[in-house]
Amino acid sequence: MVPSRLRSASLAAGLALTLTGSAALSQQTPLSAKDSDPRVMGWMQGFPPPADKIITQPDSVYFSFPKLRWSVCHLREFLPTTEISRGLGAPVPLTYPEPAAFADLRAEIDALAFTPLGGGPEMTWEASLYANYTDGILILHKGRVVYERYFGCLDEGGKHAAMSMTKSVTGLLAEILVVEGVLDDSLLVSDIIPEVSASAFGSATVRQVMDMTTGIKYSEDYADPDADIWTYSAAASPFPKPEGYVGPDGYWEYLAQVQPEGQHGEAFHYKTVNSDMLGWIISRVSGQSVSDLASTRLWRRMGAEQDAYQTVDGKGVPFAGGGLSLGLRDLARLGQLMLDKGQINGKRLFPAEVVDRIRAGGDQAKFAGYPTIPNGSYSSQWWLLHNEHEAFAARGVHGQTIYVDPVAEMVLVRFASFPTAANGGIDPTSLPAYIAVANYLMARD
Amino acid sequence: MVPSRLRSASLAAGLALTLTGSAALSQQTPLSAKDSDPRVMGWMQGFPPPADKIITQPDSVYFSFPKLRWSVCHLREFLPTTEISRGLGAPVPLTYPEPAAFADLRAEIDALAFTPLGGGPEMTWEASLYANYTDGILILHKGRVVYERYFGCLDEGGKHAAMSMTKSVTGLLAEILVVEGVLDDSLLVSDIIPEVSASAFGSATVRQVMDMTTGIKYSEDYADPDADIWTYSAAASPFPKPEGYVGPDGYWEYLAQVQPEGQHGEAFHYKTVNSDMLGWIISRVSGQSVSDLASTRLWRRMGAEQDAYQTVDGKGVPFAGGGLSLGLRDLARLGQLMLDKGQINGKRLFPAEVVDRIRAGGDQAKFAGYPTIPNGSYSSQWWLLHNEHEAFAARGVHGQTIYVDPVAEMVLVRFASFPTAANGGIDPTSLPAYIAVANYLMARD
Repeated sequence: MVPSRLRSASLAAGLALTLTGSAALSQQTPLSAKDSDPRVMGWMQGFPPPADKIITQPDSVYFSFPKLRWSVCHLREFLPTTEISRGLGAPVPLTYPEPAAFADLRAEIDALAFTPLGGGPEMTWEASLYANYTDGILILHKGRVVYERYFGCLDEGGKHAAMSMTKSVTGLLAEILVVEGVLDDSLLVSDIIPEVSASAFGSATVRQVMDMTTGIKYSEDYADPDADIWTYSAAASPFPKPEGYVGPDGYWEYLAQVQPEGQHGEAFHYKTVNSDMLGWIISRVSGQSVSDLASTRLWRRMGAEQDAYQTVDGKGVPFAGGGLSLGLRDLARLGQLMLDKGQINGKRLFPAEVVDRIRAGGDQAKFAGYPTIPNGSYSSQWWLLHNEHEAFAARGVHGQTIYVDPVAEMVLVRFASFPTAANGGIDPTSLPAYIAVANYLMARD
Repeated sequence: MVPSRLRSASLAAGLALTLTGSAALSQQTPLSAKDSDPRVMGWMQGFPPPADKIITQPDSVYFSFPKLRWSVCHLREFLPTTEISRGLGAPVPLTYPEPAAFADLRAEIDALAFTPLGGGPEMTWEASLYANYTDGILILHKGRVVYERYFGCLDEGGKHAAMSMTKSVTGLLAEILVVEGVLDDSLLVSDIIPEVSASAFGSATVRQVMDMTTGIKYSEDYADPDADIWTYSAAASPFPKPEGYVGPDGYWEYLAQVQPEGQHGEAFHYKTVNSDMLGWIISRVSGQSVSDLASTRLWRRMGAEQDAYQTVDGKGVPFAGGGLSLGLRDLARLGQLMLDKGQINGKRLFPAEVVDRIRAGGDQAKFAGYPTIPNGSYSSQWWLLHNEHEAFAARGVHGQTIYVDPVAEMVLVRFASFPTAANGGIDPTSLPAYIAVANYLMARD
C-alpha cells in the first residue's frame, strides 16, 4: 500500500484524482447528480456541521466522490494559493439577450436531443447536464450568452477547479511568448533551464514539452509505492515536509531529476509534468510566475469579473499543470478570446497567430489511442478534435472543458464534478451534445 | 524547548508572532525599514530565487523579521484561506483631489513635525513612516483621500495581513447583530453554544466576550511546552494533524475546553480566544461564517475594490481573531464606515447605533496597564483612546491600524511590518503623528 503521508499530498500533483475517483466508482454505482448535490448531502452546513458532514484533510478524503462535488468549489480552503488578479477596474459584463428571449433559448436548448457516443437511447441536452454532474455551463454564440446554468456547489460568484484546463492557460501563455519572440520553441529545454540538463527534459525541445511528445519516465502505478507519482506528490505538497524527508522539494526540483523513457518526439504521452516544465520555462524567459503572467496577459485585460487563483507548492511555485480555479464567466471569456483569436471587448490582447498556431494542431499520427477523440491531436496544451467544425478544447478531469467551435462561432464552457476522473467516461454524453447545440445555433441564425 | 511541530502551526493561532518578532529583535538592532525592504532583500525574486532568498514553511521562519516584511503580503501562499467576496459589480472608487493638489497635500503632510511619546527629538511625518516600517498608509479627510503611499511588499492592488484588526471586523459584525436583535449580548455563551458549557466561556456573557473581560486561562509562556498557546496552535493548524494527535481539532474544539482563571467581568484581558469565541457565536446566530458575514454585510455593499480573504483551520473555520488580509483602500472604506456610522457612498449598511455603542467604550477602570493608551478602553473588539478627539481604533501586531478621529473627520489606515509584534514599540512614533496630521487637516479647513 501507498503510505498515507504520500497519498495526502497527491492533489498538489494533480493526478491521484484518477485513483480516488476510480476507487470510489469501482465499488458500486455512484450517487446520481441530484442525490450527490453538495446541498443535498449537507456538506459543511452548520456551525459546526455535524461531524460526518465536515470535509477536511487529506485530499484522498476531500477529493473523493461525493465529497469532491463540494471540494471543487473550495480548493483554496484546503491548500495555499496565489492570486491571479483581475486588477482594480470595473469588469466588462458579458452580453445577454432580453430575459424573455433568454428563457426561450434555454427551453429550446434544454429540449435538444442527441445520441450519445457509442449509441444508446437518445438523451436531451438537459438530461446530459445531470448525466455529466455539471456544476456550471455557459454557452456563447457570436459573443453573446445564449445559455447559463449553475448546479451543485457553484453559482455565478463562485470559483471552480479547472484541473487540467490549467495546462491550456499555461500553453496559451507559452504560445504568446513564442509568437512575440520571447521564447524560442526550437531550443532545448536545457538551453533555457540549465538546472534540468541531467534530467530527461534537458534534451527535449520546448515544442516537444508544449505538445507533450517528450520521452520521459513518469509512472502512475498507484499500487507501487516507488512510482513516480508519489515522489512527485511529496515534492509538490505545500505542507511542511516531514522530518527526515530527503526527496525533491517542489515542482522544479522534481523536474530536475526526471528519467528518460522512449524517444523525444516519438509519440504524444499525456503527462502533467510537461506542463510544469513549461511553466518553469515561461517563468524563466518572462520574469513572471505563471499566475502573474495569466494576470498581466489575460485577467487584467479581458474584463474579468473575478480574480482567479492557483495552488502553489511549498516554495510558492504555482501548479502550472492543474492548480487553477476561476469563475465560469471568466472561463467563457478565455474561450471567446480563443474563438476571436486574441480579441475581446474590442481590444487585442495577443496576435491572432497565437491561436492559428494552436489550431494548426499536433501530429495526429502520434495521438493514437484516445477513443473518444479518434482523430484528434494535442498542441500547445490544447486538444484539437479535427472534426468538421474544427473544434478545439481545454479539458480537465471530472468534466472540465472549454469547447470552442469556430464554425458555429460557439464557445461552450463547463465545470463539472463527475464521479470518475477520466474524461472517457463523460465524453460520450458531452461531445455529441456540443455538436447538437452548435447545429441548433447555426440553424437558428 | 517547544516542539517544532507545534511552533510551525503558531501563526494559525495568531499569537506566537510576539515570540518570533521579539526573539529576532532581542539579539541585535534590526535592519532599518529601507534596508529590510523585501525588494532590497531580494526575497522570492527569480525562477527559482537563490536558495537563501526563498521564503517557505514553517511560520516560525516565514513570519520572523525581516522575512515577515514579505510574508505579510503573501499569507495565502502559505495557508489555506476562504474568500470574502466583494461580489461581481463595479467598485466605487475613492475620491481624490486633483493631482497637483494631492501632491501639495503629500508634501505638506510629509513635512509635519511631532514629538514622539515619551519625549525625544522631533520627528517628521515622513520619517515616522520609515521608523514604523510602514507598508501602506492612506488618510481620508471628510471622506476624500488626502494622502496615500505604499512601501515594501504592498501596492494599491495588493493585500496585507490585518492581524488583530480582524477582531474589530468580527466585533463590528457582532454589534450589528446585537443592534438588529439577532444576538442578545446579555445571554450566557452557553445559552447560544451549548458545546462550551463545560468550558470557562460557558458562564461568561456574550458582552464579556465582546469586551474581553472574561476570566479564562490562556497562558502564553512560550518557554512552557504545556502552555495553552501550543495547544491552541496545534488545534488551529490547517495542515493534516500528525499521526497520533489527540488534542482539540480546530478553533472551536479548543474553545470547548478552556479553563477558568479569575472572574468574568473583573478586568480587561487581551486574549485572542475571545475573538474566536465571538466568531463562533455570530456564526451560530446568523447562519453564516464570519467570512460570509463580512462579505454580505460589508464587502459586497461598501464598493470594495478587492475581495479579501481569511485563513482557516483544518475544518474550514475562519480565524476570527487574526486571519484577515485585505487591500489598503478597502481598509479605508471600513474606517470611513465607522466614522460615518454605517453609511458609505450614500448607502446605509447598518444602523448608526452600532457605532454609537462601540464608541461608548468599555470600562476604563478595567483597562489599567496599557502605557501607550493610558486612558483607553476596549469595546466590541475596538480600542477607544478616550482622547480629546474621541479617537478609536482597530489595531494589529506589527503596526496595523484603522485610526478614526471623529473630531477631525479623519480616517487613517496603516499596514506595517514593524520588527516586533507588540504595538507598544510602534505607538510612540505613531499616535502623536496621527494627532499632528489631524490638527493639520482641521487647521486647513
